[in-house]
Amino acid sequence: MNDISIAVDAMGGDNAPRAICEGTLAALREMNDIRVTLCGREAEIRPFFEGADDIKDRLTILDAPDVISMHDAPMLAVRRKTESSMVKAMLEVKEGRCQAFVSAGSTGAVLAGGILRVGRIRGIERPALAPVLPGRKKPFLLIDSGANVDCRAEYLNQFGLMGTIYMEKIIGTKEPKAGLVNIGTEAEKGCQMVKDAYQLMSAQSVYRFYGNLEARDVPLGEADVAVCDGFVGNVILKYTEGLAGTLTGMLKDTIMESGLRGKLGGLLLKPALRVFKSKMSYEEHGGAPLLGVNAAMVKAHGSSSALAFKNAIRQARLMVETDVTGTIRRELEKLAPAESAE
Amino acid sequence: MNDISIAVDAMGGDNAPRAICEGTLAALREMNDIRVTLCGREAEIRPFFEGADDIKDRLTILDAPDVISMHDAPMLAVRRKTESSMVKAMLEVKEGRCQAFVSAGSTGAVLAGGILRVGRIRGIERPALAPVLPGRKKPFLLIDSGANVDCRAEYLNQFGLMGTIYMEKIIGTKEPKAGLVNIGTEAEKGCQMVKDAYQLMSAQSVYRFYGNLEARDVPLGEADVAVCDGFVGNVILKYTEGLAGTLTGMLKDTIMESGLRGKLGGLLLKPALRVFKSKMSYEEHGGAPLLGVNAAMVKAHGSSSALAFKNAIRQARLMVETDVTGTIRRELEKLAPAESAE
Repeated sequence: MNDISIAVDAMGGDNAPRAICEGTLAALREMNDIRVTLCGREAEIRPFFEGADDIKDRLTILDAPDVISMHDAPMLAVRRKTESSMVKAMLEVKEGRCQAFVSAGSTGAVLAGGILRVGRIRGIERPALAPVLPGRKKPFLLIDSGANVDCRAEYLNQFGLMGTIYMEKIIGTKEPKAGLVNIGTEAEKGCQMVKDAYQLMSAQSVYRFYGNLEARDVPLGEADVAVCDGFVGNVILKYTEGLAGTLTGMLKDTIMESGLRGKLGGLLLKPALRVFKSKMSYEEHGGAPLLGVNAAMVKAHGSSSALAFKNAIRQARLMVETDVTGTIRRELEKLAPAESAE
Repeated sequence: MNDISIAVDAMGGDNAPRAICEGTLAALREMNDIRVTLCGREAEIRPFFEGADDIKDRLTILDAPDVISMHDAPMLAVRRKTESSMVKAMLEVKEGRCQAFVSAGSTGAVLAGGILRVGRIRGIERPALAPVLPGRKKPFLLIDSGANVDCRAEYLNQFGLMGTIYMEKIIGTKEPKAGLVNIGTEAEKGCQMVKDAYQLMSAQSVYRFYGNLEARDVPLGEADVAVCDGFVGNVILKYTEGLAGTLTGMLKDTIMESGLRGKLGGLLLKPALRVFKSKMSYEEHGGAPLLGVNAAMVKAHGSSSALAFKNAIRQARLMVETDVTGTIRRELEKLAPAESAE
């Protein structure tokens, strides 16, 4: 079996390059069938691999003097900063030297580069960001979580297809179903674009359609894939963050106001609460895949630790191994033969 | 001072007519400056007021043999079911015999009737549902929470105005600010409609504009009013319900799996958790006002208890007393003089 080659942007994210380099080192040690091309400022990166002779032959460091920051305008940066770590890593993929790409850098730049530098799958109108979130019953995929704020019904239909393929291949969900996030379960519910998406999604038979998915059932994981436009998806994603913090804070306030008994209870519960917090954490899940582009691309969380980044590399590796991209390409033709043959 | 007259739909909601009648009785006893016209099946309603001689002179029972159910198509029902408790209560308002309307019945029918039977304020393009939700720092108003799934930027600007007036008058918030729910804080963020709304909202000076409000800051109560279209608002509202349940459930699971120590902690915390649950409860807040119609209208929660319904009546009473409708009418002229003079 050939090694799986992964291009890593060493300079993206709050904890770069340390967390990225440490995560990469851990990944190389844990998965002996991967090769990594690490792009970034060589002088800053090299020291983290001092003495790592065991993985030396599977690591290539590619010097990239420039960095795309959170303040750069994404499209412009991806076009102009050709010497940046992110663009260099993307070109490794585009030009066939690597099969996957991982970055904890600017989401906007990853999206822009996915389209401009790596390229869309023929027939996919809009690639989408699709993180897996912890649900009450089981994890679920949220697609699109912010890549496309203005959507057409056709995009949502494609999101449904890509999302179910990902859940089946990467999470191992059996017969995953894609639900359309809506304000009611009846077919005639929702704004016009969502109504149109309902028609398209219920008319196809390439993937399993759950039907309309009420927002209150999204966090249960009732449907394995929650399909929505990037505006609604981003609101859901960010709101979850905010609400989890708010609920925990309000709970803490209540405990502090509840006298000795409550405080003792809170103290005893501390370890359980820590377990709970880690259940809710993104670290275990790696990053969000960008689906619909011509290679496995993973956007790791900006605040990724070394552990989280290692898991993002594992995820990219698995996307290559299970051929998520090729499967999307093939299934897409069944979804809309005319369109994908454009 | 003259009494405040309130038309109540006795037959709406899961617990009708019992909870509605008991709530009405409690309201009449607690607020001696209100009169209630209770619309519904007289034979079913009358027994709940057996022996209530103390409030008899402030209660009128108006027989309405028909009921609008959750299964009725809202527009059609409001047009045709003229003998229903909801339409009869609306006509009390429309024809000037009552100043306010309260129902725990079908949301769609309340909305349809608000427009068809009660009427919009001149210049308001779309009335909006606007519940007050508990936030980390302070409560906040969510407008629109589901009345209008397809919105134009102008509607959102009007929502901002109506929401701040409500928060100032009814909740007593000093100098309330309205934020535009968005996926980032920068002016150029969001889908096209939201970008346009940002321009309108930042250009006016009739109410205080907070700027873009990131979804993660919504539950903090950072802005007193969270403005969005009814699709996004309904997703937020329902998702909150679902996530609160999911988080509580996951916490419970974690406690049960955490051995004796965690279980003891959970047991000791029970009273505190009960306080927490009631903090999150809608009961205390009454119902959601329908803003932008020509009278005080309150949509109580479908599962309203007698207590919740009493609070919804209190809320309607306060809306009349503080003249929310008149204030919206006057301020609206400053917001868009040309438009409101149509």
